[in-house]
Amino acid sequence: MSKRCAPILLVLLLLGIPGVLMAQDAAAPQIDNTKVGMDTMWTLVTAFLVFFMNLGFALVESGLCRAKNCVNILFKNYIVFSVSSVAFLLLGFGLMFGDGNDYIGMSGLWFAGGADNSPLTGAAYQGVYSALNWTSVPLSVKFFFQLVFAGTAATIVSGAVAERIKFGAFFLFCFAMVGVIYPIGGHWIWGGGWLAKMGMFDFAGSTVVHSIGGWAALSGIWILGPRLGKYNKAGKVNPMPGHSLTSATIGVFVLWFGWFGFNPGSTMALDWGSIGHIAATTNIAAATASISAMLAMWFISGKPDLSMTLNGGLAGLVAITAPCAFVSMPSAFLIGILAGVIVVGAVFFFDSVHLDDPVGATSVHLANGVFGTLCVGLFADPSVCPAASVVKPGLFMGGGMAQLMPQLIGIAAVGAFVLVLSSAFWFLIKMVYGLRVTPEEEIEGLDVGEHGNVAYPDFRQVESSHLASR
Amino acid sequence: MSKRCAPILLVLLLLGIPGVLMAQDAAAPQIDNTKVGMDTMWTLVTAFLVFFMNLGFALVESGLCRAKNCVNILFKNYIVFSVSSVAFLLLGFGLMFGDGNDYIGMSGLWFAGGADNSPLTGAAYQGVYSALNWTSVPLSVKFFFQLVFAGTAATIVSGAVAERIKFGAFFLFCFAMVGVIYPIGGHWIWGGGWLAKMGMFDFAGSTVVHSIGGWAALSGIWILGPRLGKYNKAGKVNPMPGHSLTSATIGVFVLWFGWFGFNPGSTMALDWGSIGHIAATTNIAAATASISAMLAMWFISGKPDLSMTLNGGLAGLVAITAPCAFVSMPSAFLIGILAGVIVVGAVFFFDSVHLDDPVGATSVHLANGVFGTLCVGLFADPSVCPAASVVKPGLFMGGGMAQLMPQLIGIAAVGAFVLVLSSAFWFLIKMVYGLRVTPEEEIEGLDVGEHGNVAYPDFRQVESSHLASR
Amino acid sequence: MSKRCAPILLVLLLLGIPGVLMAQDAAAPQIDNTKVGMDTMWTLVTAFLVFFMNLGFALVESGLCRAKNCVNILFKNYIVFSVSSVAFLLLGFGLMFGDGNDYIGMSGLWFAGGADNSPLTGAAYQGVYSALNWTSVPLSVKFFFQLVFAGTAATIVSGAVAERIKFGAFFLFCFAMVGVIYPIGGHWIWGGGWLAKMGMFDFAGSTVVHSIGGWAALSGIWILGPRLGKYNKAGKVNPMPGHSLTSATIGVFVLWFGWFGFNPGSTMALDWGSIGHIAATTNIAAATASISAMLAMWFISGKPDLSMTLNGGLAGLVAITAPCAFVSMPSAFLIGILAGVIVVGAVFFFDSVHLDDPVGATSVHLANGVFGTLCVGLFADPSVCPAASVVKPGLFMGGGMAQLMPQLIGIAAVGAFVLVLSSAFWFLIKMVYGLRVTPEEEIEGLDVGEHGNVAYPDFRQVESSHLASR
Repeated sequence: MSKRCAPILLVLLLLGIPGVLMAQDAAAPQIDNTKVGMDTMWTLVTAFLVFFMNLGFALVESGLCRAKNCVNILFKNYIVFSVSSVAFLLLGFGLMFGDGNDYIGMSGLWFAGGADNSPLTGAAYQGVYSALNWTSVPLSVKFFFQLVFAGTAATIVSGAVAERIKFGAFFLFCFAMVGVIYPIGGHWIWGGGWLAKMGMFDFAGSTVVHSIGGWAALSGIWILGPRLGKYNKAGKVNPMPGHSLTSATIGVFVLWFGWFGFNPGSTMALDWGSIGHIAATTNIAAATASISAMLAMWFISGKPDLSMTLNGGLAGLVAITAPCAFVSMPSAFLIGILAGVIVVGAVFFFDSVHLDDPVGATSVHLANGVFGTLCVGLFADPSVCPAASVVKPGLFMGGGMAQLMPQLIGIAAVGAFVLVLSSAFWFLIKMVYGLRVTPEEEIEGLDVGEHGNVAYPDFRQVESSHLASR
Repeated sequence: MSKRCAPILLVLLLLGIPGVLMAQDAAAPQIDNTKVGMDTMWTLVTAFLVFFMNLGFALVESGLCRAKNCVNILFKNYIVFSVSSVAFLLLGFGLMFGDGNDYIGMSGLWFAGGADNSPLTGAAYQGVYSALNWTSVPLSVKFFFQLVFAGTAATIVSGAVAERIKFGAFFLFCFAMVGVIYPIGGHWIWGGGWLAKMGMFDFAGSTVVHSIGGWAALSGIWILGPRLGKYNKAGKVNPMPGHSLTSATIGVFVLWFGWFGFNPGSTMALDWGSIGHIAATTNIAAATASISAMLAMWFISGKPDLSMTLNGGLAGLVAITAPCAFVSMPSAFLIGILAGVIVVGAVFFFDSVHLDDPVGATSVHLANGVFGTLCVGLFADPSVCPAASVVKPGLFMGGGMAQLMPQLIGIAAVGAFVLVLSSAFWFLIKMVYGLRVTPEEEIEGLDVGEHGNVAYPDFRQVESSHLASR
Repeated sequence: MSKRCAPILLVLLLLGIPGVLMAQDAAAPQIDNTKVGMDTMWTLVTAFLVFFMNLGFALVESGLCRAKNCVNILFKNYIVFSVSSVAFLLLGFGLMFGDGNDYIGMSGLWFAGGADNSPLTGAAYQGVYSALNWTSVPLSVKFFFQLVFAGTAATIVSGAVAERIKFGAFFLFCFAMVGVIYPIGGHWIWGGGWLAKMGMFDFAGSTVVHSIGGWAALSGIWILGPRLGKYNKAGKVNPMPGHSLTSATIGVFVLWFGWFGFNPGSTMALDWGSIGHIAATTNIAAATASISAMLAMWFISGKPDLSMTLNGGLAGLVAITAPCAFVSMPSAFLIGILAGVIVVGAVFFFDSVHLDDPVGATSVHLANGVFGTLCVGLFADPSVCPAASVVKPGLFMGGGMAQLMPQLIGIAAVGAFVLVLSSAFWFLIKMVYGLRVTPEEEIEGLDVGEHGNVAYPDFRQVESSHLASR
């Protein structure tokens, strides 16, 4: 891809064709420099935190996989953000936020190069990215913030399909994911599309980011099939423990840290009356979900289990992502408790139907992405902070089905769309390039087969780990 | 705990009882939106950095312990922040900052739900958290910032009691620590209590956070006793090297990074004349302490030692925490040098009296927490930056005992209080639940015994590491 | 060093001689508190991110070296920032930014203690740091931001000379690097020296930081010679794979994250029209460089290689550092592609001439530092954002040699200066202290020889790794 771009770009550059992203008309008199400055700083700093979540995903996923596949998983998690950066710049941003119709954006593609007079807002805004005309930051900041979100959706997939997918197949899927699937689904909710018009709300992306990633992961798992030896003939589940709980724990701390960018930053403005509330709800949901997942496993298996507790924390974070700005602290407390239980149940459920997800990504991101989106319809309270004024009260807050109904429709529509489209892309890649490594390579480990390399050459490995999938 | 809360909460929610934390009266005319916005951003961003210190503690502590206990230590460091989030929300915040008397806060408990018209300040403030009425940020931001500090105090304990405490015992102690011990001690100094009235100053918590954590750790060490085999019959110390200096080094870098939130953020306001000075004093103390600890060990043992140097850096950070806003750069330079020497001496001292602290937490946080608090009385100079205007000159700055005396009283009072109360909690847990794992489990490693798990299943371990404590 | 300082400092303190850094005259009427506050916050937050890059360097370098040298490399990367903090405070900051002549600063040495009325700017500024009078932040903030940059230059060296240099020799060289070499070279460009006057531009330091570090590394590599066994008699290159690709991957993510401080923060002001653009160009160059390096190695060796891809990302970041504020997004896209190819070529080139750089630091920082500086002269476009208004159009933008010529002169002059001066320091250290460990120690690993320690005592190592250099 990038190889082909190089000469084209060079030609463009030498011809002097202006492809400049983000030049500002800085002299426009209506701009409040202080407000724009503060909103820009907040949006950029939180975007940096969201970028850092790529490290968190890399470590959670590699830590929960076996050492023989470690290079491969780290590599996928590293390159996915580079691919996302390219695909979102050349295509995705325009499809998601460019003006178009209710279903797809059709302006401002190719280097996000559409007309735009940001940071002017509202009626003063003139340009092709109307769906983002509410935030008073320059276009470059809007693009960058949305890019780091797009990267997250793709990285969710990598863990679920780990330990058996070909590196090149995943590399190709990332372009489809960030260039096409995520932006179109996102356009419906954040790009002014039909779900937004219907009144569905997803503050920071339980659906847009997490369940879109989760549905794409689910279709990948289904098409790939389970790892060799994961489920034996009698249907029994063969545990394949991850190679480093240190990596996994670092990863979850990094993700929790990054989520303070993800949720409070989704204001895309220094909305001081809301961002502290959002940070607090985000945090308490992660906390109570960690504890409830820990206690659930302690009850089930007699001992507290670290990896399930870590996934509990992530489950709470995913679940609070949609409602973080719309619910009270006690509601967030309760949402977390439920999320922690849901992730434990989902892990057992997916294993029971032989959908093999080595790191539990679907249990975390899909199950709790759906649950969190639902929670807006259940717990929303427009009075909790300024950012909540847009929602209708949830079912448990006396609002009946008014807010719950659009949430349900949104969940179902996005799910069906992503399942179908991502399955189509997986099948296409399977036909053209192939999806799965050979059984020999899977047993030996993908690091040697795909990369001619191992992650830890100086350390002696336990033999059975290499043979665990036999 | 959380299991019991769930039904209660659900009832509350369904009854529509308002338990909303942090709703703002945004229309109050006296609010300076720009100032509140900037103060809120600074306080939140620095709070995120302080949250991230949990990762630092997890890695320092796990890296300095043996591989067979790694899951256990990571788990304790992970869950402690979740417990802190719950305990501080339901109880601690009100005890610490709620209006009450000189010894304890008695308002605004249970979901931090007291009356409050933040971000109004000073005379315009009306609410039950008067001790925090000086900072113009919303209540949610005050709560969140103070929460991440509370979490730090508890996490200090986990390293000191590592490699022999039962997981459940530590889990229970965390509730006591963040729900009761830390908030009451903190109320005396930061909550408008008797030490604050006496004129004691502890800018960012050498005493409030670090030595409270350190005293609680010390009582735990004393009650638990040393690890098996640490001190042999002849009184000789058996070294038990940590399993990953990579983890320990990452941890210290993360902590140093987080400290730029801890100290400069403790302004809880964008005090531009002070925060750069605080960042610079914090940094130079960490630097000179690292070098002095390194040189001290080089002199003693003939070789520079990495783990002692890392603890030297932490020692400098702990020591500068109380005086960071009150002292000049040359004073900070000197405080660091002394802190690096003190931590080396303290490690040898604690070993000599058979108080077994696997990671040196008491040497870092207790010894230097006390030393740093003292430094306010020795080096304080009210002219160094705006935030320093509240202190009296220190002994070496010509102020005599005026500032030193309240520091001494504060150190002694907090030490006595925490030693007594935390010992009481440790004994209570010992009676009710038991504190220490069996000798067999300790020798095999707590990961298998407590969690049925190991941190690195794919790697071959050195046998003697499993038997080192025999 | 610090040992000798302690008594001197104590005397100064006891005599009451004011050595106070950074006291502000806060009452000056011309200060715009909002602007100063916002600029201060942005500069400090980005400085914290740059500080965090020390962790990134520590992990990239240790991950790409062998386990037997891991403590040593972590230790070097840890202590280098402490040394930098001391050397820049006592000497370097004044040499770099103090008023002087075109070649060296000669004011404000020793605790950065010169006269200064920051945050006043321009004509209102009165003080000895005129070269920084354009940024409206307090002196403490200027110092702190510049310090974290200085630390970066020194840490680049540590990887290149790894696995054979004596710890003490590197420790001494750091003082020379941050106290003398970096500040003088930096004075020429950022301190108002002769290259600045000639019109050379290096926005965030492709030359000032990265190629100064790279040239010093190159001279070190040349004087030290290759590791034992790296090149055999037939001239064949013996690969010595790093011990943890997990560490290396974490390191690159941390560096990429930190670079969002490095480049956008180099505005040293909340220039909202520029910082988003800078973040976006920085990111896309890292992304396309990662992909082009990956594809280049895939083409060459038949398989995608993780460590080369990681170095590709770093190469893109280094290359975009000088031009990040001066070029359009398509130019940044292309600069990244080229950087990724350059780093692959450079790695093969340095090996072909038997310059042994275990981590590829010269290929990343020197080759791409030079290339990035050149890119200002090739791709600069003064219209891309407000911060670009100072440059002349580059060669490909129709500007002819106007901007390219000063870039070429700057590259050559800095290269010659650093090569000569750093070689002199390396030879001096070699004479006085010795540079290289004994062959026995090198084969056994520097961890045991230099530090009496190993990084991972609980894990069994592959024997051949200890003997790989035979």
